[in-house]
Amino acid sequence: MIIVQGEARFHPDDMPMLRKAGAEMMAATRQEPGNLAYAFAEDVASPGLVHIVERWADGAALEAHFKTPHMAAFNAALGQARVLALKVCAYDASGERLLAGG
Amino acid sequence: MIIVQGEARFHPDDMPMLRKAGAEMMAATRQEPGNLAYAFAEDVASPGLVHIVERWADGAALEAHFKTPHMAAFNAALGQARVLALKVCAYDASGERLLAGG
Repeated sequence: MIIVQGEARFHPDDMPMLRKAGAEMMAATRQEPGNLAYAFAEDVASPGLVHIVERWADGAALEAHFKTPHMAAFNAALGQARVLALKVCAYDASGERLLAGG
Repeated sequence: MIIVQGEARFHPDDMPMLRKAGAEMMAATRQEPGNLAYAFAEDVASPGLVHIVERWADGAALEAHFKTPHMAAFNAALGQARVLALKVCAYDASGERLLAGG
């Protein structure tokens, strides 16, 4: 499994546009083969700070994701936003175990 | 490295209380030895859906986190909230590589 975690800080005034673009991107990405989880989510304490949370079955699924039409559309939307900081990393992950709930 | 990812769905009316409790929990947890990242963040498309995003240096750091006073305080706040769904998992992670930004 590949896990992706990242943070992007945007100008808070751009968040209404980014919520809409992000919702469309999430809906399309969750239909992709090999996608296990995909979300954009806003920090509860810091307006404009967006957390990126992804899980993929394997690296091939993630590579295919980068080439999708909805990725191109989302990147175009990002180009309209004021990105103040950005860092997204991928990790090789294994050994899933439940910590809470189910 | 240990990665934690999870989702909790709350009654949207409980979010103001949870944002406050979550902000206090995040601030305290980010001071813990071995914590690399810790956030509660609200899905851009689904009010009341909270994503949990964590990275820890090792399993011992995560175990120590569960025994902190701020964890007890946060669990008390959670006990006041209407939790509609909850699933949190941990993963063994390695091979960090930058996908975007830096």
